[in-house]
Amino acid sequence: MSEKYVLISTDSHAGLPAEGYREYVDAKYHRMFDEAQAEAEALRELAETDDHQRFLREWNSEIGEHGGMRGAWDPAVRDKEMDHDGVAAEVIFPDADSAGVGGVAKTPFTAGLGSTGSDDAEMTLAGAWAHNRWIAEFCQSSPERRAGVAIVPLHDIAAAVRMVEWSADNGLRGGIMIPTKWGALPSYNDPVYDPVWAAAAETGLPVHTHSGVGPDPDDYGVTPGLIAIYTTEAYWWAARPLWALILGGVFERHPALKYVIAENGAWWTPDIISRMDSKWEGDHATRKFGPAAFRSGLAMKPSEYFDRNCWLAASVMGDVEIERRAQIGVGNLMWGSDYPHPEGTWPHTRPWLAERFGKVPVADTRRILGLTAAEVYGFDLAPLEPHVQRVGPTLADIHGTAG
Amino acid sequence: MSEKYVLISTDSHAGLPAEGYREYVDAKYHRMFDEAQAEAEALRELAETDDHQRFLREWNSEIGEHGGMRGAWDPAVRDKEMDHDGVAAEVIFPDADSAGVGGVAKTPFTAGLGSTGSDDAEMTLAGAWAHNRWIAEFCQSSPERRAGVAIVPLHDIAAAVRMVEWSADNGLRGGIMIPTKWGALPSYNDPVYDPVWAAAAETGLPVHTHSGVGPDPDDYGVTPGLIAIYTTEAYWWAARPLWALILGGVFERHPALKYVIAENGAWWTPDIISRMDSKWEGDHATRKFGPAAFRSGLAMKPSEYFDRNCWLAASVMGDVEIERRAQIGVGNLMWGSDYPHPEGTWPHTRPWLAERFGKVPVADTRRILGLTAAEVYGFDLAPLEPHVQRVGPTLADIHGTAG
Repeated sequence: MSEKYVLISTDSHAGLPAEGYREYVDAKYHRMFDEAQAEAEALRELAETDDHQRFLREWNSEIGEHGGMRGAWDPAVRDKEMDHDGVAAEVIFPDADSAGVGGVAKTPFTAGLGSTGSDDAEMTLAGAWAHNRWIAEFCQSSPERRAGVAIVPLHDIAAAVRMVEWSADNGLRGGIMIPTKWGALPSYNDPVYDPVWAAAAETGLPVHTHSGVGPDPDDYGVTPGLIAIYTTEAYWWAARPLWALILGGVFERHPALKYVIAENGAWWTPDIISRMDSKWEGDHATRKFGPAAFRSGLAMKPSEYFDRNCWLAASVMGDVEIERRAQIGVGNLMWGSDYPHPEGTWPHTRPWLAERFGKVPVADTRRILGLTAAEVYGFDLAPLEPHVQRVGPTLADIHGTAG
Repeated sequence: MSEKYVLISTDSHAGLPAEGYREYVDAKYHRMFDEAQAEAEALRELAETDDHQRFLREWNSEIGEHGGMRGAWDPAVRDKEMDHDGVAAEVIFPDADSAGVGGVAKTPFTAGLGSTGSDDAEMTLAGAWAHNRWIAEFCQSSPERRAGVAIVPLHDIAAAVRMVEWSADNGLRGGIMIPTKWGALPSYNDPVYDPVWAAAAETGLPVHTHSGVGPDPDDYGVTPGLIAIYTTEAYWWAARPLWALILGGVFERHPALKYVIAENGAWWTPDIISRMDSKWEGDHATRKFGPAAFRSGLAMKPSEYFDRNCWLAASVMGDVEIERRAQIGVGNLMWGSDYPHPEGTWPHTRPWLAERFGKVPVADTRRILGLTAAEVYGFDLAPLEPHVQRVGPTLADIHGTAG
C-alpha cells in the first residue's frame, strides 16, 4: 500500500464570476438574470459592515498569492491549489461564494445552497440548469479528479428525474443536491419523491443535502443575537432530512440509495440515531402511540439504514467528530476542505490534517480522508495514483515520525 | 440530614374533565367553548385507531385501582397518588390529558402545551385565564405541596405582564409557561419581551417552555413515518428558545431571570452549549461573520448564562442524562414524574427511581430529585418535612443496602 494518503475532499465548491453564468442561462431568462444580479449587488452593498470589510481585507490578502478566488472557475488555478493542499480529487458543490468573499457569483436565481422547496419552481429550475451545464463542462477539464454535483430542484418530479438522468449521462458522478429544506413542498418521507430516489439509486448518484439554510426569513428578525442564533441552529435544518428519509421508509423502498449530508458535522448523529432506535424498539415514552407508529415500513432498525445508506461529508470536522468516530461509524464519515470557503482548511489543509488526524490510527485516517469517498462516488483510484504520488500527504506528514 | 429523600416532581400535570372548565371561562366565550369541545370530541373519535384503543384499555386497567385519571382534578385522589409515589411536592403544568387518555380535557381553546404564538390571541388568552383561575384554586387545597404554573400567552405584552403579576399575587409559584414556539410572534431574542422577563425576574417566577409542539401542521402530512418523525424531532422545537434567550442577551439584561425547559430531556444540552461557547470564543468557522456578531451584548460565555439562569425539568430522564449529569450541570437537572401522563413514571415511581438512581451518589441524587427544585421554586422545606417523613423514599429504597 502506498505510503501516501489518497486525499479526497467530499465538500468543495465551484462557481463563476457574476457575468460568467449568463451564457449558461436559457436566453429567455437573460433579462431576469440581469435584474437579479443587479439586485443582489445592491443588497450586498446595503448589508456591508465594517467588521465584514475588515475580514475581507484579511482573507483576500491571505489568498492573494494563491490566485485569490480564481480557482472557483479556472481549472489551472484550481489544479494548482488542490496540489498545494495535497488533494487528489474532490466532490464539487455549487456556490463558491461564502459570506460575500467577492469575485464570484451565487448560482443564478439563488438555486444553490440557499434554495428551498418554497422558492419559485421555474426560476429555480432555470438557475439549476445554468449551473449544471457549466459544472459538467468544468469537471471535464480533469474528470478523474473532479466529481461535480448537480442541483436538482424537486418541485416537478418528472423534471427532477430527467435532471438525474442528464447528470448521469453528463458525467456528474458527484451526484445530486436537493433542497435542504422541503419548505412548501411535501416532506421527504412522502412517497411522491420515490421516482427521484429510484433514479438516483439506479444511476448510482448519491443524493445530498448541504448545510446553509436556516429558518424562514420571517422566523426571527434583525434582533440581538441573530447571526449567533442562526449559526447555532443551522446544523439542525440541514440534519432534518435524515430522519424524514430513514423513518419514512425511503431506504427500505430504495436499498441502493446513497444519501450524504454535507458540511454539517457529524457530532450529532450518534444521539439522534440511538434515540430513533430506542423508539423503534418500543421504549416507554412511545408506548401510547402503539408499536405500528414506529415500525411501519421499517424492517430494520434506523441505525442499520443509517449505516448502510447514509454518509456525513463532515468537511472541516472538529475534535468531537474524531473522538466519536466509532459511534458515528468510521465508514460513514468523510473529510472535505470546503475549498474555497474561508471556513474551510484551504490554503492550510496540510498543517490542519496533522493537527486533527495526528493521533488517529492510519486505517481510520485512510477511510475518513479518502477511501470511503472513493467507494461512495466511484472514483477510480488508478488514474488518481499519479496525483497521489505527486502531491498526497505522507504518513509522516500527518502522524509525524510516530505514524 | 433526614434519611429520606425530598422528592419534588418538577413536571406534573392537572386539568379538569371537559365540562368542568366551563365555569372558569368568561361567560362571553361559553358558546365558543361548547362548540370547541364538541369539535374536539368529534376529531378524537375520527382519529381513533385499534392500536390506541388497545393501549387505552391496558392503561386504564393499570391505573383503575389508583382512581384512574381523577387525581388530575380531585385533590384527595391526587394526595393519595403523590403519597403512593413518594412525592412530597410538585410543579403542576396544564393538560393532564396525553394521547387522549380520556376523562380529562385539554386546556380550553387549546391554550396549553400545544399553544403557539401563531394561535388566535383572544381565544388563547381566554383559555389561559380559565386554566389559571382553576389551577390557582386547586393548588390552595395543599399549598405547601403544589406549585401551579400559569399559562402566559405573549401576543399582548401588557396583558402578559398583568398575568405574571396576577400569578404571583395568587400563589402560582410554579411560575409561568410561555408558548414553546413563538410562531408568528417575534422570536424570543427580541427585546419586545423585556417587560415580561422583567416581571418574571421581579416576582421570582420561573419562565417555562414545555415540550409538545412540533412543526407547523402543513410541514409534513399524513405520510409514512409521521409519528416517528414527530417524536424524533419534538425535543428540538422545545429546545430552541434556549439559544434564542441566551444569545439574544436576555439573561444579560435580566440576571435574576430563571428559565426552565420541561419534559425535554437534557442529553442534548452539553453539545449545544459547548458549540455556543466555541462560537462566542471566535472559532474558525465563525471568523467570516466578525467577532461582534457573537459577543454583542454577552459579557459572559453562553455556558455561564446557562449555568446561572437555566434548568432542565428533565422528567423521566434516561440513563444518558444520568451519565452526562456533570456536563449538563448537576445543579441544573431536575426530576419529574410527569403525573398523570402514561409516558411518566406513575404509578411505578419508586421502582423506577431505584433502577435509574441506584448507583448515583447520594449528594447528586438529592439535588436532582428535589433540593434544586426547592431552590428554583421556593418550596419551604419545613412544612414539607412531615410529608417527606411519611412517604419519602429512603436511601435504602433507592440505593439498596449499599446506599
